Amino acid sequence: MSTLQGYTVPRTPSGRASLVPPPPWHYVGDFLVVDFHADPDAAASLLPEGLEPHPDAGRCAAVFADWQSYSEGGDELLDPARSHYKEFYLVVNALLDGEPVTTCPFIWVDQDFALVRGWLQGFPKKLGDVWVTRTYDLETRAAPAVAAGSRFGGVCTARGNRIAQARVTLEAPSETGSVHTDPPIVNVRHFPRLAAGRHDDPQVHELVRSRSRDRAVSPVWEGAAELELFDAPGEEHTLLRPVAVDRGYRFTFGYTVDDLETVKELVR
Amino acid sequence: MSTLQGYTVPRTPSGRASLVPPPPWHYVGDFLVVDFHADPDAAASLLPEGLEPHPDAGRCAAVFADWQSYSEGGDELLDPARSHYKEFYLVVNALLDGEPVTTCPFIWVDQDFALVRGWLQGFPKKLGDVWVTRTYDLETRAAPAVAAGSRFGGVCTARGNRIAQARVTLEAPSETGSVHTDPPIVNVRHFPRLAAGRHDDPQVHELVRSRSRDRAVSPVWEGAAELELFDAPGEEHTLLRPVAVDRGYRFTFGYTVDDLETVKELVR
Amino acid sequence: MSTLQGYTVPRTPSGRASLVPPPPWHYVGDFLVVDFHADPDAAASLLPEGLEPHPDAGRCAAVFADWQSYSEGGDELLDPARSHYKEFYLVVNALLDGEPVTTCPFIWVDQDFALVRGWLQGFPKKLGDVWVTRTYDLETRAAPAVAAGSRFGGVCTARGNRIAQARVTLEAPSETGSVHTDPPIVNVRHFPRLAAGRHDDPQVHELVRSRSRDRAVSPVWEGAAELELFDAPGEEHTLLRPVAVDRGYRFTFGYTVDDLETVKELVR
Amino acid sequence: MSTLQGYTVPRTPSGRASLVPPPPWHYVGDFLVVDFHADPDAAASLLPEGLEPHPDAGRCAAVFADWQSYSEGGDELLDPARSHYKEFYLVVNALLDGEPVTTCPFIWVDQDFALVRGWLQGFPKKLGDVWVTRTYDLETRAAPAVAAGSRFGGVCTARGNRIAQARVTLEAPSETGSVHTDPPIVNVRHFPRLAAGRHDDPQVHELVRSRSRDRAVSPVWEGAAELELFDAPGEEHTLLRPVAVDRGYRFTFGYTVDDLETVKELVR
Repeated sequence: MSTLQGYTVPRTPSGRASLVPPPPWHYVGDFLVVDFHADPDAAASLLPEGLEPHPDAGRCAAVFADWQSYSEGGDELLDPARSHYKEFYLVVNALLDGEPVTTCPFIWVDQDFALVRGWLQGFPKKLGDVWVTRTYDLETRAAPAVAAGSRFGGVCTARGNRIAQARVTLEAPSETGSVHTDPPIVNVRHFPRLAAGRHDDPQVHELVRSRSRDRAVSPVWEGAAELELFDAPGEEHTLLRPVAVDRGYRFTFGYTVDDLETVKELVR
Repeated sequence: MSTLQGYTVPRTPSGRASLVPPPPWHYVGDFLVVDFHADPDAAASLLPEGLEPHPDAGRCAAVFADWQSYSEGGDELLDPARSHYKEFYLVVNALLDGEPVTTCPFIWVDQDFALVRGWLQGFPKKLGDVWVTRTYDLETRAAPAVAAGSRFGGVCTARGNRIAQARVTLEAPSETGSVHTDPPIVNVRHFPRLAAGRHDDPQVHELVRSRSRDRAVSPVWEGAAELELFDAPGEEHTLLRPVAVDRGYRFTFGYTVDDLETVKELVR
Repeated sequence: MSTLQGYTVPRTPSGRASLVPPPPWHYVGDFLVVDFHADPDAAASLLPEGLEPHPDAGRCAAVFADWQSYSEGGDELLDPARSHYKEFYLVVNALLDGEPVTTCPFIWVDQDFALVRGWLQGFPKKLGDVWVTRTYDLETRAAPAVAAGSRFGGVCTARGNRIAQARVTLEAPSETGSVHTDPPIVNVRHFPRLAAGRHDDPQVHELVRSRSRDRAVSPVWEGAAELELFDAPGEEHTLLRPVAVDRGYRFTFGYTVDDLETVKELVR
Repeated sequence: MSTLQGYTVPRTPSGRASLVPPPPWHYVGDFLVVDFHADPDAAASLLPEGLEPHPDAGRCAAVFADWQSYSEGGDELLDPARSHYKEFYLVVNALLDGEPVTTCPFIWVDQDFALVRGWLQGFPKKLGDVWVTRTYDLETRAAPAVAAGSRFGGVCTARGNRIAQARVTLEAPSETGSVHTDPPIVNVRHFPRLAAGRHDDPQVHELVRSRSRDRAVSPVWEGAAELELFDAPGEEHTLLRPVAVDRGYRFTFGYTVDDLETVKELVR
């Protein structure tokens, strides 16, 4: 019997080399969100088995997040090369057994541990570079305040191709926050099989919902928004190119992820 | 029923956004290899269930590879940001049912598609940066020839920490090639479970061997070698720190991977 | 006569491709600073012509800065890939005509525009990667508050080698701030000559002091500090390896740079 | 008098931390070149003072180079993170005192030492990522041979924006090689002044020509070519967008740069 330990590979006798330490994982991030509508058929075409289109057809959101995270048993906060990361993702709204949910068809992130930790939660992450205008806790002209008239930009690129770009001009505190990202997110955990003749029969294929706690959110500001998605080789996120751009939102959000529940086992 | 396609996530109606296109995958790479011996107990401690220690206790190799690859249905060679990558890995020699094999406990690579394609084949990849002295098809002082006296260097870093460094001085064509990398490689495909209370029960956990064909290799040169492995936060490859450094090798190798066979299902 | 415009190369008819737009440049950054003492002889050996050793022999500081900046005529804040950057640098304390000053012998930064903008101000920048623990404007366990007991880490790497690492545990608001970074900074602008036989006769070689305005600083917190500098190929910052580590500081700072004054023309 | 040494900053008592070691510099690289014609007025508008338009109006070339280099006194070849780099550049053909020359208005490179070494020779380098299809010294389907029908791709991106892309299909050995890159290259060394009120009066501003020796070139192959230049924020290379794409070329080239001669001092 092997004595190898570790939540993920690489596995060793101590388990300390694991790319992702075991949960709980604690997160906090600055968010720039743009609610928008895509072509309804395109949005529906990206829903995994088990989800139905949302009645507000084509409802989507684009999210830029500037994260810091650590694992409960870990020391990542003091070695910030292992705690900082930024990501960009799109969500599509849907129904699961008649209840509103969101699901993430496309996402890019700038660190390996976050890429794999995402795969484990059903986020289909690729590597990308993400940049978002920052605030600082000082009155200065080199950073926007969280205040009316302030402008924030976000950009995502992957393998040297621009993927997405957004701009939000804050107007006022938001009463609702981003409606398009409000429902719980359900994703597909998927790990393909490489065995001969069975490449179409994934070894892991299930609809899941993360279980989290200690959710906290700052006041949310909203305002006018712009959003563009760009074609790139090997990418298909422009299926969700906006047909209408709704409001933009800026806030800070933190939570802890413990584990997940499997909503449905999916067939091929 | 969902109509989403794609060998890996992200999955779409066309399947074209998949981070890794389906096999066959065609590869060619320049290799700098250093055969060495690690502490026998340390080497044995890293063997997965199903493998027994090799009688030449502690037999290992360090490999720097400068790759180009593409998928049979893909166009990566003409968009070389999707075909080039470099990696560094260590192998430990072992026995599987009495037959010599190798297994890879640690590996770093510089592209996302190669990281995930590695996980699918049981290589426990993390992101890293790898550099290897190149040859050029021109007589010049700015590149070594494949000839006696030529010196090649390799270096691997990850998240800003030096992981490994090697130097090889070519002496003559090699009669044997690298003995320590000669046996077939068997690895552990591993994908953890995140469901509540079952983090110790991986969803995929199996010993596998890739099935390949069309293997080609250039003449192999060998010579004196140096190898150093360096401690780094969150890494444990220095368990295999050399106790004796054997010969170094330089060659070019190409092959095609079609799929794999599962050697053993592993229990937890 | 050419009609090419631009503060730096590349120069074009419009001037818009210039790697660095013309000043004024507006900056804001989060700072993690460690005051320390190096070997007095080593510190003195790094002083450029025109500066004398400080009476508090070996007085130095290490600075991690997480910046956002833009040019007065530019739009960098809305394309944050052109406004964000992080850097790590060391300063040595000295006297200029009997008055206390600091000077920067070593600095690493993660963006090209910041590298060149630094050279123009006399900062001897190389590329590196810098990470610093962040705060967020939300009470959360995933980020330290600016409060007693909070711990912050900083790390700098360059070309895959760890350069420096620091940790600061906040204790209380600081009455003095960082004494070792308080004096004005004077640096050497240097641009070598490549003309035959004159490689030792730099074309630009002058001691300069930036002229800035609108300086603002947040409350400064201080506490116990750790600092390590690491050897790396092609680097010599470990000349300043700490012989005593003093206090650490955390604050946010903003200012505007307009231009500079030449303090002294230096001979070879 | 200061005892600081070093061809560039950072300068130290030993001079070993210099970002660029002193020349001679030895180079070898694989080249993918596309001769093309741009709009004649646009090409002429980018010529520095001292150069006149070439009679073949709008004659330009695009060059992807995959380099390895070292400094005569240095050990970069054995620490290949300091010897490898890739770059993409454009040249415009012109006349200098009636003789054909080329000049480089735009160039991107992926390493800091190469960026600064370029500035010293008058190349207006910015950071970018460059990828070029590789050959290997092995018959394999994963790499093109230097032979009729082989296809090579090149791509340059900068700060996440695609800058340029080329494809060349080899047809036959070339009798002429790339005519558009054949003349000697003259560039503008430029280092701006930051002193108050004199931002328009560069401190270094001169037309220069590198002095090199030991030039070697492999057989050159040529074939049909495609070339695209893409708009990006803060970039103006699309001024040279092709109006006609001529032939493409593939070869290996090596040389040694010793120093330069100043062709003309330029006024503002």
